[in-house]
Amino acid sequence: MKHFSKKDIDVLPSRKRAHLINSSTGYKSANLIGTKSKKGISNLAIFSSVTHLSSNPPLLGFILRPLAVTRNTYDNITANKLFTVNHVNQHIIKAAHQTSAKYDIGISEFYETGLSEEYLDDFPIPYAKESAIKLGCKFVNEYFIHENECLLIIGAIEHIYLDDSIQSEDGWLNLEQAETVSISGLDSYSLPKVLDRLSYAEPEKKVDSIL
Amino acid sequence: MKHFSKKDIDVLPSRKRAHLINSSTGYKSANLIGTKSKKGISNLAIFSSVTHLSSNPPLLGFILRPLAVTRNTYDNITANKLFTVNHVNQHIIKAAHQTSAKYDIGISEFYETGLSEEYLDDFPIPYAKESAIKLGCKFVNEYFIHENECLLIIGAIEHIYLDDSIQSEDGWLNLEQAETVSISGLDSYSLPKVLDRLSYAEPEKKVDSIL
Repeated sequence: MKHFSKKDIDVLPSRKRAHLINSSTGYKSANLIGTKSKKGISNLAIFSSVTHLSSNPPLLGFILRPLAVTRNTYDNITANKLFTVNHVNQHIIKAAHQTSAKYDIGISEFYETGLSEEYLDDFPIPYAKESAIKLGCKFVNEYFIHENECLLIIGAIEHIYLDDSIQSEDGWLNLEQAETVSISGLDSYSLPKVLDRLSYAEPEKKVDSIL
Repeated sequence: MKHFSKKDIDVLPSRKRAHLINSSTGYKSANLIGTKSKKGISNLAIFSSVTHLSSNPPLLGFILRPLAVTRNTYDNITANKLFTVNHVNQHIIKAAHQTSAKYDIGISEFYETGLSEEYLDDFPIPYAKESAIKLGCKFVNEYFIHENECLLIIGAIEHIYLDDSIQSEDGWLNLEQAETVSISGLDSYSLPKVLDRLSYAEPEKKVDSIL
């Protein structure tokens, strides 16, 4: 077994450390966050940090990197308090990854990557038409994380759109059918296949497949 | 396309809402967090919220649910400031899921689930021997998230252990080779297969495969 101590990690070349640390915590979600500027320019950016926070109320969180450089997504969310979250599927990984390029303000990543803006039910922020699962969210709060000078953004889920076929009777979404991908590290995209669903765990009772 | 508005979500039966909301944000990581109580009882609990926070310094975060009920993991982490993070792989999903049962204090989930404690390099907290990727972490800080009364726990990564074969030349870990799984919703385990790694994105330049 290979061992990296804190000392070993600290002296790694910065890119190598980024690859190692970024993939060491396991798989991450793959979502495109859609926003709109005050001037009406739409923005689309890939995030691997969108995480479930609570079901009631329905809340999600994601991490925004330091504010030292201009962050269109942050400026737009604080301007109009709304954003969309759109699952990346296997057919759009290149376009989704391309949204991480540093385009000038005034240029829409929708236009640059060929992904399509979609407006649904009077929500003024664009969804990505190509996504099979999309969320319309309201900005709720932000927390400054001192340790790495990042922001944790909290959003309330106000709309969910999904292809009919991917929801099971009990509410669960089959992300394999949605062809949703997951991210590991900085640049790797994987396609998960369902192994199993397991029953609610209790002491003195073996968990069973409920698929 | 099916549409759930905020009103539709609010009136769903609570279990159905939990399944829907929990799977709506995409794939989550699957990790076992190892801790030890003041009395020396080891604890192992599955978490789907462990997330990369920063590479330099190497930090991760995870969400702990409300403190209204006893949370062994939280008590243990605040007692001795150390914990381990161990990837769940496809061979141990049932044992890993079983750790979510509410065992009495004084009972170790290692013993109950058949997973093996492993002590490495004088770190006093057990790792899960069966995991191919394990992190030794130090508690750094906690943030109270008012919106859902959860805690965001920040940990510093101080040790990384991994099977030799899964790291590529540039530092990236091949989680497919580690057979690491991802979680969607409350109870579903999936096995991802690498689709591609993509080059650093820049404007006016198409991203390429770097696998």
